Amino acid sequence: MKLQVTQPNLAKALNTVARVATSRATLPILSNVLIKTNKNRLNLSATNLDIAITQTVGSKVDKEGALTVPARLMQDFVNNLPDAVLKLEVKDDKLYLSTNKYQSVINGVAADDFPVMPDIKDGAVWKAKTGDIKSGLQKVVFAASADDSRPVLTGVLFHVVDGKTILAATDSYRLAEYKYSTAKTDVNFLLPHTAANDLLRIIADETQALTITHDDQQVSFATSDTKLVARLIEGSYPDYRKLIPKKFETVAKLKRSDFMNIAKVSALFARESAGSITISTAADKVSINAIASQVGENTAAADALVKGGGEVTLNSRYLIEALNVFDGETVEFCFNGKLEPCILRSVDDPTYLHLIMPLRS
Amino acid sequence: MKLQVTQPNLAKALNTVARVATSRATLPILSNVLIKTNKNRLNLSATNLDIAITQTVGSKVDKEGALTVPARLMQDFVNNLPDAVLKLEVKDDKLYLSTNKYQSVINGVAADDFPVMPDIKDGAVWKAKTGDIKSGLQKVVFAASADDSRPVLTGVLFHVVDGKTILAATDSYRLAEYKYSTAKTDVNFLLPHTAANDLLRIIADETQALTITHDDQQVSFATSDTKLVARLIEGSYPDYRKLIPKKFETVAKLKRSDFMNIAKVSALFARESAGSITISTAADKVSINAIASQVGENTAAADALVKGGGEVTLNSRYLIEALNVFDGETVEFCFNGKLEPCILRSVDDPTYLHLIMPLRS
Repeated sequence: MKLQVTQPNLAKALNTVARVATSRATLPILSNVLIKTNKNRLNLSATNLDIAITQTVGSKVDKEGALTVPARLMQDFVNNLPDAVLKLEVKDDKLYLSTNKYQSVINGVAADDFPVMPDIKDGAVWKAKTGDIKSGLQKVVFAASADDSRPVLTGVLFHVVDGKTILAATDSYRLAEYKYSTAKTDVNFLLPHTAANDLLRIIADETQALTITHDDQQVSFATSDTKLVARLIEGSYPDYRKLIPKKFETVAKLKRSDFMNIAKVSALFARESAGSITISTAADKVSINAIASQVGENTAAADALVKGGGEVTLNSRYLIEALNVFDGETVEFCFNGKLEPCILRSVDDPTYLHLIMPLRS
Repeated sequence: MKLQVTQPNLAKALNTVARVATSRATLPILSNVLIKTNKNRLNLSATNLDIAITQTVGSKVDKEGALTVPARLMQDFVNNLPDAVLKLEVKDDKLYLSTNKYQSVINGVAADDFPVMPDIKDGAVWKAKTGDIKSGLQKVVFAASADDSRPVLTGVLFHVVDGKTILAATDSYRLAEYKYSTAKTDVNFLLPHTAANDLLRIIADETQALTITHDDQQVSFATSDTKLVARLIEGSYPDYRKLIPKKFETVAKLKRSDFMNIAKVSALFARESAGSITISTAADKVSINAIASQVGENTAAADALVKGGGEVTLNSRYLIEALNVFDGETVEFCFNGKLEPCILRSVDDPTYLHLIMPLRS
């Protein structure tokens, strides 16, 4: 292999792929990044066997070839080089990288041993925009479970209901659902939340065309120069939609920033009680009360338009995380007494809905 | 106690003092902040017994008094409140804090039990500017030792040589010295580096008058509204000035940013060898070579004006940390063979000097 590539291009590609490389692996080559010519371009790839990312950059290839080198060293090194044309050459499994001021030799491992994820053939395809996928994923991914005891709950569900494509995630304590109003697809798969977070990280330019292709085992998200392939979670997802209440005894409409402020202040007093806060409504306000026997007590209120009335006890973290992803200025907080699920929804935007299970108080 | 204070004022004071409060202490009240009226002002204080910080803010005091409350809770709480006038009232060792939208009760501990550091009487005094002290401390404090086995080396020495006030710190591997060109004082004390870092943190406005007062046990740094008192380190400081070479076989003058770049890139290849890099000079350049048997090898060069020639092996971290605090564009790197101390100094600015001991290679 012998080629030239600019430092900004190589740094960008390394920053996209290197984080997937893992040094904790029992397979040492997984801590390496694969550098491989592809006609007159250069592919950089890293994988942890569950997720693989490949980034393609322009380069001037004099001689084709491939090598794997330690991902973290290579990333740190190239990021610290000045903006210049870098010459890369492979001899005897060593990468010689040079500019007029820098010469380095990095010991590599032959590319033949690098694991490659199989291609997806004849899969279902959804052509979307990177920005749309990013926007939807950001609103649901944090509601997925981090606990591996029920693997299906650690995923983000992509499915179609009534002709609309929907992303959903739940850890059984809360549930987030984002509905694409126009997209018509036949996608149906369960993406690990780790892969969703990697995808969010590498979507930089939000206006690119994104092709999503999946079969039963894998999904790939591909733009013209970046591709993420992830193993899917197997298993059947719970029928979460039956949990969403259709009618509410109490509906409070208030400014999202006000609701966030009183939730945050109350959360400080709820540390002792695992985040438990009690939300009550009156004619013109929403109040949050938190009691910490050791520390003290706090009541905070925000102006609201309220229909009905009542109170419900929630985990403050779930409320704060949900309020954080709403776009509009105003939210509606809806509930039916102390035992049934609460709903947060946007007044202006029907695409997003967030459900939080109450705590027994 | 009954008073009114604005949220920005109270938040600022808490952010200044609360970090000194420590929850690891065997004395639980040390995790609290003391809130005490002082005529028509409010004093907030925290201490870990080695360092005490007091911040004074304006307030409208209706009834004098004092209480201690958990520092971290109080800080987080007040930082999350909106910009408004806060009403504070103490009843039965509880602090009632309210605005029109928030009411909270925080359980406190009586102020009588809060440890207060004794006043400094008849101490030596140095009147300086906050900006000058900040500038000098930043350039030396990182060279102090973090290792308690030789306590004097964990301090920053304030002393007077030939009529000039000097700050110095050394961990025996490197040494930093900052010389005030005009200040004439009779200060002579050894400030713990932890206190120096706290002082750097709380000096926000760099143009204030700062009064430094010390006796044999303590030093205080006071502006009109902030005061830090620290216990001094006892013991005699090594006569470090005899280590500083007067003449050099090799003097290389180069751009600081170039030197930093080649040092950083080389450091990546020096991780295996505890940071060991070899610096060599030729007629018109400085080169750094780093060899990592597992990983590879790197040589990087920067343009320089060189008198003499030779090579020396250093710890890359010390070089990078030193280059980081120089102000000017150009530095001089001076050494005498492989075994004697190297010096970094500024071409334009004689106030700062940094010494690094070579590694045996």
